[in-house]
Amino acid sequence: MPYEEADLGLLAPSSAGSAAALATGDAAYLRAMLDAEAALTRAQAGLGLAPESAAAAVTAAAADTHRHDPRDLALRARAAGNPVVPLVADLTAAVAACDPEAAAYVHRGATSQDILDTATMLVCARALATVLADLRRTADALRATAAAHRDTPMAGRTLTQHAVPTTFGLKAAGWRALVVDAHDRLAAVRIALPAQLGGAAGTLAAFGAYAEADGGTPEPPAAGPGPGPGPGPDPDLGLRLLAAYAAETGLAEPSLPWHTLRTPIADLAGALAFTAGALGKLAADVLTLSRTEVGELAEGGRGGASSAMPHKANPVRATLITAAARQVPALAAVLYGALAAEDERPAGAWHAEWQPLRDALRLVGGAARDAAELTSGLQVHAPRMRRNLDATGGLITSERLVAALTALTGRDEARRTLDAAARRAMADGIGLYEALHAEAPALAALLSGKRLRQLLDPTDYLGSARALVDRALVDRGLDRTGLDPQEPT
Amino acid sequence: MPYEEADLGLLAPSSAGSAAALATGDAAYLRAMLDAEAALTRAQAGLGLAPESAAAAVTAAAADTHRHDPRDLALRARAAGNPVVPLVADLTAAVAACDPEAAAYVHRGATSQDILDTATMLVCARALATVLADLRRTADALRATAAAHRDTPMAGRTLTQHAVPTTFGLKAAGWRALVVDAHDRLAAVRIALPAQLGGAAGTLAAFGAYAEADGGTPEPPAAGPGPGPGPGPDPDLGLRLLAAYAAETGLAEPSLPWHTLRTPIADLAGALAFTAGALGKLAADVLTLSRTEVGELAEGGRGGASSAMPHKANPVRATLITAAARQVPALAAVLYGALAAEDERPAGAWHAEWQPLRDALRLVGGAARDAAELTSGLQVHAPRMRRNLDATGGLITSERLVAALTALTGRDEARRTLDAAARRAMADGIGLYEALHAEAPALAALLSGKRLRQLLDPTDYLGSARALVDRALVDRGLDRTGLDPQEPT
Amino acid sequence: MPYEEADLGLLAPSSAGSAAALATGDAAYLRAMLDAEAALTRAQAGLGLAPESAAAAVTAAAADTHRHDPRDLALRARAAGNPVVPLVADLTAAVAACDPEAAAYVHRGATSQDILDTATMLVCARALATVLADLRRTADALRATAAAHRDTPMAGRTLTQHAVPTTFGLKAAGWRALVVDAHDRLAAVRIALPAQLGGAAGTLAAFGAYAEADGGTPEPPAAGPGPGPGPGPDPDLGLRLLAAYAAETGLAEPSLPWHTLRTPIADLAGALAFTAGALGKLAADVLTLSRTEVGELAEGGRGGASSAMPHKANPVRATLITAAARQVPALAAVLYGALAAEDERPAGAWHAEWQPLRDALRLVGGAARDAAELTSGLQVHAPRMRRNLDATGGLITSERLVAALTALTGRDEARRTLDAAARRAMADGIGLYEALHAEAPALAALLSGKRLRQLLDPTDYLGSARALVDRALVDRGLDRTGLDPQEPT
Amino acid sequence: MPYEEADLGLLAPSSAGSAAALATGDAAYLRAMLDAEAALTRAQAGLGLAPESAAAAVTAAAADTHRHDPRDLALRARAAGNPVVPLVADLTAAVAACDPEAAAYVHRGATSQDILDTATMLVCARALATVLADLRRTADALRATAAAHRDTPMAGRTLTQHAVPTTFGLKAAGWRALVVDAHDRLAAVRIALPAQLGGAAGTLAAFGAYAEADGGTPEPPAAGPGPGPGPGPDPDLGLRLLAAYAAETGLAEPSLPWHTLRTPIADLAGALAFTAGALGKLAADVLTLSRTEVGELAEGGRGGASSAMPHKANPVRATLITAAARQVPALAAVLYGALAAEDERPAGAWHAEWQPLRDALRLVGGAARDAAELTSGLQVHAPRMRRNLDATGGLITSERLVAALTALTGRDEARRTLDAAARRAMADGIGLYEALHAEAPALAALLSGKRLRQLLDPTDYLGSARALVDRALVDRGLDRTGLDPQEPT
Repeated sequence: MPYEEADLGLLAPSSAGSAAALATGDAAYLRAMLDAEAALTRAQAGLGLAPESAAAAVTAAAADTHRHDPRDLALRARAAGNPVVPLVADLTAAVAACDPEAAAYVHRGATSQDILDTATMLVCARALATVLADLRRTADALRATAAAHRDTPMAGRTLTQHAVPTTFGLKAAGWRALVVDAHDRLAAVRIALPAQLGGAAGTLAAFGAYAEADGGTPEPPAAGPGPGPGPGPDPDLGLRLLAAYAAETGLAEPSLPWHTLRTPIADLAGALAFTAGALGKLAADVLTLSRTEVGELAEGGRGGASSAMPHKANPVRATLITAAARQVPALAAVLYGALAAEDERPAGAWHAEWQPLRDALRLVGGAARDAAELTSGLQVHAPRMRRNLDATGGLITSERLVAALTALTGRDEARRTLDAAARRAMADGIGLYEALHAEAPALAALLSGKRLRQLLDPTDYLGSARALVDRALVDRGLDRTGLDPQEPT
Repeated sequence: MPYEEADLGLLAPSSAGSAAALATGDAAYLRAMLDAEAALTRAQAGLGLAPESAAAAVTAAAADTHRHDPRDLALRARAAGNPVVPLVADLTAAVAACDPEAAAYVHRGATSQDILDTATMLVCARALATVLADLRRTADALRATAAAHRDTPMAGRTLTQHAVPTTFGLKAAGWRALVVDAHDRLAAVRIALPAQLGGAAGTLAAFGAYAEADGGTPEPPAAGPGPGPGPGPDPDLGLRLLAAYAAETGLAEPSLPWHTLRTPIADLAGALAFTAGALGKLAADVLTLSRTEVGELAEGGRGGASSAMPHKANPVRATLITAAARQVPALAAVLYGALAAEDERPAGAWHAEWQPLRDALRLVGGAARDAAELTSGLQVHAPRMRRNLDATGGLITSERLVAALTALTGRDEARRTLDAAARRAMADGIGLYEALHAEAPALAALLSGKRLRQLLDPTDYLGSARALVDRALVDRGLDRTGLDPQEPT
Repeated sequence: MPYEEADLGLLAPSSAGSAAALATGDAAYLRAMLDAEAALTRAQAGLGLAPESAAAAVTAAAADTHRHDPRDLALRARAAGNPVVPLVADLTAAVAACDPEAAAYVHRGATSQDILDTATMLVCARALATVLADLRRTADALRATAAAHRDTPMAGRTLTQHAVPTTFGLKAAGWRALVVDAHDRLAAVRIALPAQLGGAAGTLAAFGAYAEADGGTPEPPAAGPGPGPGPGPDPDLGLRLLAAYAAETGLAEPSLPWHTLRTPIADLAGALAFTAGALGKLAADVLTLSRTEVGELAEGGRGGASSAMPHKANPVRATLITAAARQVPALAAVLYGALAAEDERPAGAWHAEWQPLRDALRLVGGAARDAAELTSGLQVHAPRMRRNLDATGGLITSERLVAALTALTGRDEARRTLDAAARRAMADGIGLYEALHAEAPALAALLSGKRLRQLLDPTDYLGSARALVDRALVDRGLDRTGLDPQEPT
Repeated sequence: MPYEEADLGLLAPSSAGSAAALATGDAAYLRAMLDAEAALTRAQAGLGLAPESAAAAVTAAAADTHRHDPRDLALRARAAGNPVVPLVADLTAAVAACDPEAAAYVHRGATSQDILDTATMLVCARALATVLADLRRTADALRATAAAHRDTPMAGRTLTQHAVPTTFGLKAAGWRALVVDAHDRLAAVRIALPAQLGGAAGTLAAFGAYAEADGGTPEPPAAGPGPGPGPGPDPDLGLRLLAAYAAETGLAEPSLPWHTLRTPIADLAGALAFTAGALGKLAADVLTLSRTEVGELAEGGRGGASSAMPHKANPVRATLITAAARQVPALAAVLYGALAAEDERPAGAWHAEWQPLRDALRLVGGAARDAAELTSGLQVHAPRMRRNLDATGGLITSERLVAALTALTGRDEARRTLDAAARRAMADGIGLYEALHAEAPALAALLSGKRLRQLLDPTDYLGSARALVDRALVDRGLDRTGLDPQEPT
């Protein structure tokens, strides 16, 4: 093992080996920082602020990620507090080795945060592409599950107790609705991820300073009629460069440099916390319904085999998703807290974003992969659902009986009777049918045995469950606009 | 004081007495719960599920908030774990006192969470109206400030140190951009706040059970051709009722009951944390720039007078906003965490939302009011900004000099020279002009004194600051769509 | 209802009406602030810095909490950003009304934070007394439960699945151990809660200034030999006053003024988060074991009766404790975050502590009361535990069988055989005894039927559960040192 | 770069290359897991439950960390959800290769959590040793600073404004007090870190099962008189093994297996959050006092050199500490939240601890190293402190003047006069001396010019600052008990 300090995923079984983990490793950040540097020089060349040969040289030198050792950069990052400073030194040297004149154009006019923020947005865009694809896989699997179990009755549970019947289709449709919500929020955030460029304090002044020093501001692209700008800095130069840079990176163009206007980070925080929670809901239900005593669901495959107990099939995917859902909100809180950043670039608030954002991406990426696997292989034990429905001997439909008896005897009397019958049923271990006859024979006799059986049939008391499923599956398509053509669907 | 336990705002100077605090007190929640109950009976009456007289009776009884004592309800809420249960008992009694038959229609078919969730959405809608208005006031004040100080130069500061010049207009435009972002996020969340109705486990079954018990499902509004539904529960009844109920409450109609699909809560969490952070950025800068040694800004009025130190004018508004920005992200984390709620209604996750959501609303409401006051009265000391710009004797423009010297001597030599000159300037307490001449006379002589003075003039090195301000004020209008006509603008 | 904004506990069923809630209401804070002011004047009088008559007058005026309206103070607190400023004005007026000369001694030399911090410590001390008593009640109930069920076998569950048998006594002893840990941590924090006194910036200088202005520093209590301090401020005066003030308040004497050395707040944060989590563990298990399908535990009383479903008895106490456990860690994070407070008194970090600390106290106070009630009335269904143990037909002891077979056939073969038998048992719905005979008759025959039955008997595979219970109940007594004599035990 | 996913510290300049980072890398966890496995077999051998040869073989095989590839383990951990399962497979194979019979004793009777929890405690113990040493270095440096600047006056600042004078010694003594508090909390937690051993569900049953299968429980070490235990499991065996295992690991012996009694984790969370915040206070002050306009402190060395602005020396260490202080409380909240873990081993709560605990260790480890460097090299600009003290022309001592004038004219008149004088001084840019004479000449004349000058001398108004420093440095020694002999001091 080359680096004793390294994290290689040993404590991250959920994300280890995932596309999201790959997209967020140190190598991916390094790649993105190099992309940002190359885009900057190309954008300057496009505006005449640098020779095309410099853009070509920087792009070529930046293309080789493996020339750079993240570990070495990490150690050298300590001096200035960020990894861009040593990377710029190395990239400059690499460019100089090929084209000495081009070296002067590396990172020209930029600040470290321009590069690291842009790189972070590139990393996010790339990582989110895989997360979104996994969410679509999950939503599609859940659509199929909801449709297949549209009519599968099961116990509806509230505050841990059987309440009234529902369907597994409705539950799955609800899971899907949350996953779709998560997908659409992440997709909307992703498409808006902006490039960052502001220079030392967000005025883009250095670009003008170099233009001026190099012999006057270049002509604006289409200067229109008139004598054109005279010598001296062109105040629009910064805006033009910002647009060109954003275009080179493939990211959105921001209205303002956002060194301390952290909307993109905060929006990521919210969408990632949302996604972790949305998947966490699904996982919480899978864990509950997989309990030995409940047994209505099981993860596919062997699940997590126990080393010592051959009978155990642990709900490992749901467990790991749950673990992620417990962590991401706290990371999001750190990111939201970083909005309150002082000055033009802050001392700490920015630095506090780096790892929490990456960790949130990884946790959500792992959870999305786990969710896609879990939902595609989920084993649904409909007979067990049916058996559990009957476990309370009809009590699960007592709400319907209250309604029926209310019409016969008024609300208070109906409640009293059912309360007594329910108590008797539980105490004596008999069904509600028998308990009602025992407790209130006259009242019970008002209903035919057949009608009472019907009222007590949980499969006949599903309300609008099916209609809700049908509507939810129609209404809530995924927002697939704005996806890259190359994104897996 | 009637209730020893009460919170009356003693520890909440930011929000005490604010419209947001009023909109989120126990009385406001009580009002909203009563509104929800009345809307439910009216919606049922509209579908023929309850007599119009019952709707009228419930609406009338629910109109009188003061009939109910939140303290008494709070104590009785303990038994069932939520305040709806005792409120329903009281409301039923109140209705029965006027119209005994109507009493049976109170809360019919609903679950406590239907009422409390709907009430919470009503509280949020009402509280956010005032928050949004304060954010608009803040944004408008900042627009004026940014325009007025479009050309006011000041030191740009990074990692606490002077970096390069910027303008106060650009800073104010940035603050405004964040406030606009916050406004638009909150406004989008607010317009989507949904009513809640699902019955015991989200199937809406009880409504059908009562319809059935009362003599068959009523006709659907426009049943279309054919014999219509026979006897037996109408599966679409729940959906029709959900629509009617949402319409009665003025809230959005949800696609599914959302007892454990907490998208609305999570979206509120994110938008509130965003807003707290956005205002927190403004406050962080005001605190920094108000420091005795900096003195560039001061809160209007006397600010917070100190009892013992007559000279002190504390930046109280910024302080209280900062305090809010430190708290809301953690509350949002709790709310995001509540997404992972098990079953059809959870044992704890739901209950954990109540106070954090209210607290977040209050903190943000107080911060928005503080921000509106702060920005409308902000004192800007442009001369002090100018003086501070000069404090480093020209070092603040050294970046420009690097560019200029680079053109003359190449990058490495330019850096070396400036490094040495900067060190000398700081050591000897002289200006950079003098230090450069002392350190590198030959090089300094390459530039005319006039040119060097110009290069060292901080007011001549503002980059695209003005263009950025102009664009930001044009681009980023507030989204005023979806505002209630009655909302203050 | 007098104050529309008030919180009266409507959204806090857990703590409403509790001793902890009473101890943390606005009235309690007001009371404590008045106590702090009176203590300060008395301490000054004790050192000769104020006349005894002034101390008496301030103490008398401060004795009447009801003279002050927290709501009015809350609104006036807005100007200076804290409630001490208006309270001092009112108290001064009240004193002046009785003893005009004494008025000058109100709050003399102190800063607002001296009073509010001291008041907060008094509130914490008083609230924690009730929390500690409830934790002791809880621990005592759990001791009895653990002892009573020392030998009650039940399924041990891991990752939601039956693993191996355990005892309910061991589970209860574990709950108790956590409660004891929580108690001892809170008790240790409580006894160290310090008074706060530093004056404007923590130097205690103003006290000397008044002493000087009033005619020279008073003699130190035991000045020792020598000429004693000459005229001019006595540098030890502040320390002597700090000691006297702490003694008057009954709080500990701090080594330094701690306006921005927030050890006491951070320690409270940790102990409160610990306690919420410790009770949350208990609640999580109660919720799980109360599930309809598990049915091993039930809250006593009727639990939370459902309005619509007469059979439901919701685990309300466990639900509310769970809700608290979800909130307190986030509040603690805000408090830990407030450690990083700049300057001698900070602009925001301090203000951000007030409500989270109070909320944490209340949530923990409510949870402790709920836990005391829950544990004292807990219904344990040992027969159901026994039945659930058998639910897997012996699979729950497969670990023991692995051991037994390993000795006969080696580890790999034992595993393979048990894996196959477990699969067959689950697929065919038969017991492991039968499945083993079917799958590996030769191997099964190596063990006598009686021995195999014993190996499969879950009540014979409890390991060291009993010894652990016995040890835990002996080892881990509550730390009752440092309790006030008047504290309920 | 071998592993594209790896974190090598690129985004962690604070901790990269630190001893704490090295002690918490995947390699360190792997090492600790192997140590735990070897200790388990040795402990069993010590009790006669395994042959000594097996203990020797496992210990030998476990000694070679480099035989195992954390990356490969990470990928295989995915199946069972934790890295112990694949590690046991590999270790078993490695042992089998040398001593086939010994292979059966690898991990015998344990559950994955036994190993990973024990390993985590070992990692914490090792990492905290370095953290504690850095905290001692920091405290020692601050002791020297506080002593050196015991008499160095500076402005005391509250709510960002000059309040009254203080000394830099008092500030440094306060920083030290927090560092000492942090040290002592971490040291107390460290010494109590327990080994973990419980088997599948915390009953330690499997150890007895193997003992039984292998031919009867071995004799207890000192069986006392009587026939000794008959055949059948020895209930005390588990306890004896637990003690022996703890002794082998060098960790404390727990009273109970703590799979879901997470006191050690919660205590770590609190102590780590405390430490981050304590260092964060120091960093917040360094950042403030390093501001260009304040200039009272500077980090030693060149600080963080800016790439583009040669004059900038960024306070990098304080920035990185601040970033850590913003993150650790949220991680601690996750850990406190994990206390509420259901069952005998939970599905998610445990898994959610791994990374946050490691991240907190790293962040605190990095911050402690940064703090040690920062405090040992801190540049204190006493003349600038003196100059800033005078910046308000005497207003900083107005509190003292209030006292003096109160003795002459009564409180209200004194306040009014000083208010007016302060306003005039600020408006006219004159000193308070002059302003007082201008505003209230008669009153000013009551004091001699010399006396008034003295009253306005900030260096004469330091209260008990010195006495507090002296006491704090005497009182608050570091708790050096319980340190390993080999720990650096």
